[in-house]
Amino acid sequence: MQNIVERLLNGDRRALARMVTLIESEAPVATRYLAQLHQHAGKAHIIGITGSPGAGKSTLVSRLVRELRKREKKVAVVAVDPTSPFSGGAILGDRIRMLELSGDPNVFIRSMASRGSLGGLSASTRDVVRAMDAAGYDPIIIETVGTGQAEVEVMRTAQSVVVVVAPGMGDDIQAIKAGILEIADIFAVSKMDKPGAQQTVAELAMLLSLDPNRKKSSWRIPIVKTSALKESGLDELADRLQEHRTFLHESGMMETREQRQVQSELRALILQAVSHALTEAVSEDEWSSLIDKIIRRERDPYSVARELEARIGLQQS
Amino acid sequence: MQNIVERLLNGDRRALARMVTLIESEAPVATRYLAQLHQHAGKAHIIGITGSPGAGKSTLVSRLVRELRKREKKVAVVAVDPTSPFSGGAILGDRIRMLELSGDPNVFIRSMASRGSLGGLSASTRDVVRAMDAAGYDPIIIETVGTGQAEVEVMRTAQSVVVVVAPGMGDDIQAIKAGILEIADIFAVSKMDKPGAQQTVAELAMLLSLDPNRKKSSWRIPIVKTSALKESGLDELADRLQEHRTFLHESGMMETREQRQVQSELRALILQAVSHALTEAVSEDEWSSLIDKIIRRERDPYSVARELEARIGLQQS
Repeated sequence: MQNIVERLLNGDRRALARMVTLIESEAPVATRYLAQLHQHAGKAHIIGITGSPGAGKSTLVSRLVRELRKREKKVAVVAVDPTSPFSGGAILGDRIRMLELSGDPNVFIRSMASRGSLGGLSASTRDVVRAMDAAGYDPIIIETVGTGQAEVEVMRTAQSVVVVVAPGMGDDIQAIKAGILEIADIFAVSKMDKPGAQQTVAELAMLLSLDPNRKKSSWRIPIVKTSALKESGLDELADRLQEHRTFLHESGMMETREQRQVQSELRALILQAVSHALTEAVSEDEWSSLIDKIIRRERDPYSVARELEARIGLQQS
Repeated sequence: MQNIVERLLNGDRRALARMVTLIESEAPVATRYLAQLHQHAGKAHIIGITGSPGAGKSTLVSRLVRELRKREKKVAVVAVDPTSPFSGGAILGDRIRMLELSGDPNVFIRSMASRGSLGGLSASTRDVVRAMDAAGYDPIIIETVGTGQAEVEVMRTAQSVVVVVAPGMGDDIQAIKAGILEIADIFAVSKMDKPGAQQTVAELAMLLSLDPNRKKSSWRIPIVKTSALKESGLDELADRLQEHRTFLHESGMMETREQRQVQSELRALILQAVSHALTEAVSEDEWSSLIDKIIRRERDPYSVARELEARIGLQQS
């Protein structure tokens, strides 16, 4: 019998599902498998889709998957919910989408919810994408529920980020001003059949024309008009995504992004190891007692930090 | 001749100014001094004042300092600009304020700008506050220029946070919705002499009434109406700040906040040491070469991370 890594590489869906579960539960063995999977990954186009709750992301993702299937792509979706400690809601959404796309062996959908730290969720997302990539899915879509700091972190794994905006959501435009603009490669206005949709397109266009970073890149962020009701705009969205991928490769930005991502992954892995080492070296009680001593001015934070560094073996200058 | 720590503790302003410079330049000797200063700190009320550019923070801070001086307080101000790599702008602001408050030996004002990482700036701010605290200043006001993630980080050092909102800045209300609300203990509406000021007060009151966290705390966030032109509201602001400090002590929240702050300081100090150790152990060239190998799939990030952890001496599980 083949092991899980071989089965996954051979396209066994159950092996991939099992791997995702191992990654989510932070099983130590997952890291060993991922190290082997890494050399087979790096081929997929990684697409991020984000936007406020109610922007119509889930519907847009379903329709985009259908469009990509028409183009004979093997598509994976990972839906990430940083706000929920349970994946219940997300799983319900999955079930509904699963029904729509059921029975298609070339579509793989999984949800992930926040178990603890944001760092943990970003790391798990990156690892799940790596496993899907090694299993031959391309593109891989990462969908997040909101547009907060957590979502921005998760989106860093993506190569091409689509920000979905629904008509008449003034708050969205504010959120975009407040930080989402930096991560957007494509805007998709959903529900173009609704009143006020043209106004939203105009507001976005205005916002883009005022973007001080606009001149720094030769990529012009497109605004794609979509409607799930009229089933329109998804072909254009798929085209723009393909164009963005080509742009990243030709401009050399793909390489820069990859370097930045690897650097941040290494840093995250090392900091995670430091956290683990601290947890092992210092008990909860001792930790509380040290903090109390610092507050009571019996100890100072600098010497306590040095002591803890020595305890986990860290070389000191 | 006394050393710098003794002189600082004896209220020598030049010694304090020198200490701030040592902290800002991240001189290794600063940590040794700070370890000694720590036991003399912990007495001051640490006030954070934040708000969008143009909200009128600087003026409000000047007037608040004047009000606190009437109450015979010895006041220190640290103005932090996370967006600027140079402290030029901030220093100019200082000079103007210095003129206003010049010659008063019981007022100490210093600006700090971003030199590198946000983490570095937060740490420096905390250390500068510690030095001012040990030197006998109480309260200490931390002022930041904006309301982004960087400012929120810096504000974590404060015990009582005032968010300043100017009339007619709709964006401010959006920013408050998007995350500032969590850190606000007091709202100060500036420029109450301007048209639309009452409307801004009403909007804030509405926002506060909708806050889901409202019931969790017995502290009701007050909205203080101020006008620098009419020189009104500063006495009320000083009263509310005093009330908040009393509330923190009586509710036991001061202790909880302190514990959280010490824990985050220890964590930050250890992570900083890890960064230093990595910089010493791995040259820029080697770092680039490792990243390239991971991208070319010759190495995987997990084993590289383990190797780097071993190089800095980190104990592995």
